[in-house]
Amino acid sequence: MAVGTRERLVEAAATSFMRQGYAGSGLKQITVESRAPFGSLYHFFPGGKVELAAEALRWAGAGYAQLVAAVLDASPDVVTAVGDAFAAAAHTLEATGYADACPIATVALEVASTNEPLREVTAEIFESWLDGLTARFAGEGIAPERARELAVLFVAALEGGFLLSRAARRVEPMEALGRTVAEAVQAALPAHA
Amino acid sequence: MAVGTRERLVEAAATSFMRQGYAGSGLKQITVESRAPFGSLYHFFPGGKVELAAEALRWAGAGYAQLVAAVLDASPDVVTAVGDAFAAAAHTLEATGYADACPIATVALEVASTNEPLREVTAEIFESWLDGLTARFAGEGIAPERARELAVLFVAALEGGFLLSRAARRVEPMEALGRTVAEAVQAALPAHA
Repeated sequence: MAVGTRERLVEAAATSFMRQGYAGSGLKQITVESRAPFGSLYHFFPGGKVELAAEALRWAGAGYAQLVAAVLDASPDVVTAVGDAFAAAAHTLEATGYADACPIATVALEVASTNEPLREVTAEIFESWLDGLTARFAGEGIAPERARELAVLFVAALEGGFLLSRAARRVEPMEALGRTVAEAVQAALPAHA
Repeated sequence: MAVGTRERLVEAAATSFMRQGYAGSGLKQITVESRAPFGSLYHFFPGGKVELAAEALRWAGAGYAQLVAAVLDASPDVVTAVGDAFAAAAHTLEATGYADACPIATVALEVASTNEPLREVTAEIFESWLDGLTARFAGEGIAPERARELAVLFVAALEGGFLLSRAARRVEPMEALGRTVAEAVQAALPAHA
C-alpha cells in the first residue's frame, strides 16, 4: 500500500461529502479520485462508508477550525476578526464557484435523523467549534454565558450564510451576516458603552 | 386516479426530502407512503424525481413561510415575535425527536453544486422568505437595507439553529439564537435609544 493512500482517501471523501452529501457520494468515485485501489478502502476502513465518513468529517472539521482560528488570529481586534471570517467565507464561495463551504453541514443535516453514529460525530465537531469560539469571546472579557451565545450566533450565521449564499450563488447574504454578527460582538464587549 | 393522490405524493416527498435528503429519498418509498400506485408518480410528474422535488420544495416552502408568518402575527410586538419564532422552532424539534426542521435546507445544500434546476428552486424559496421578512421589519420603521440585513440574520440563524440543534439533539442553540436575533431587531428599531 503506497504511503499516503489513507490520507488521500480521507481527503477525497471529505470533498465529496461536502459537495455531494453522504448519500450522493459513492465509494467507487472516492477511490478513483484518491488514486487508491478499491480494496484499500476496506483495508483502512473495515467499517466501510460510515467509518470513512466519520474520519473524513473529523479531519475536515479540525481543518476548518484551524482555518477560522487563523483568520481570527490575523485581525487586530475581535470585531474586525469576526467580519474578516465572514469575508473569507464569502471569498472562498466565489473562488470555488459556490462549491466549497462548510465541510460538515451537508452531511450533518442528512444524517441527523438517519444515522446515529455519524450524527454524534457531527455534534462533537460543532461542539468543539463552539467551545473554541466561546473561549475566544470570553478572553475579550465577555461573560461566559454571553460568550457562548455569541459563539452559537457566529457558527449558526456562518452555516446559514453558506446555505443562503450557495442557493442564491451570491455573496450578499454572507457579507450581510458579517456585519450583523460583528455588531453583536461589538455590543457585548465590556468596553462598549 | 383517486382525488388527492397528487397532493399525497407531494406531501410525502416533502417529508422524505426534509428528513432524508434528496439522494437519500426513494421514489418507491414515497409512493408507498402516499398510498399511490407507482405509475401515478410519472403520470403527475413526467419529469420524475426532479419535478416532484421542485413541487414538494415549493409547497413546503410556502407552508413554512405561512407558519412563520402566523407565529410572528400572533405576537404583540416584533421583538417578542422574533423570540417566539425561534421558541416555536425549538418546540417543533423537541416534539418530533429532532426530525422536523427546515423543509428546504437539507436538499438545498445537497443540490447547490449538483442540480441546477433544483438549486434555482431553493434560491427562489429563500428569496421569497427574505422578501417577506424584510417587508415586515421595514414596516416597523427600520430602513430597507437594515431590514434586509435583519431578514438575512433571521433566516440564517434559524437555519444554523436547526443544524446545530439537530446535530446535538438539544434546543439550547435554537433558544440562544432566539435571544440574540431578537436583540439585534430590538437594537434596529427606530424607537430604540
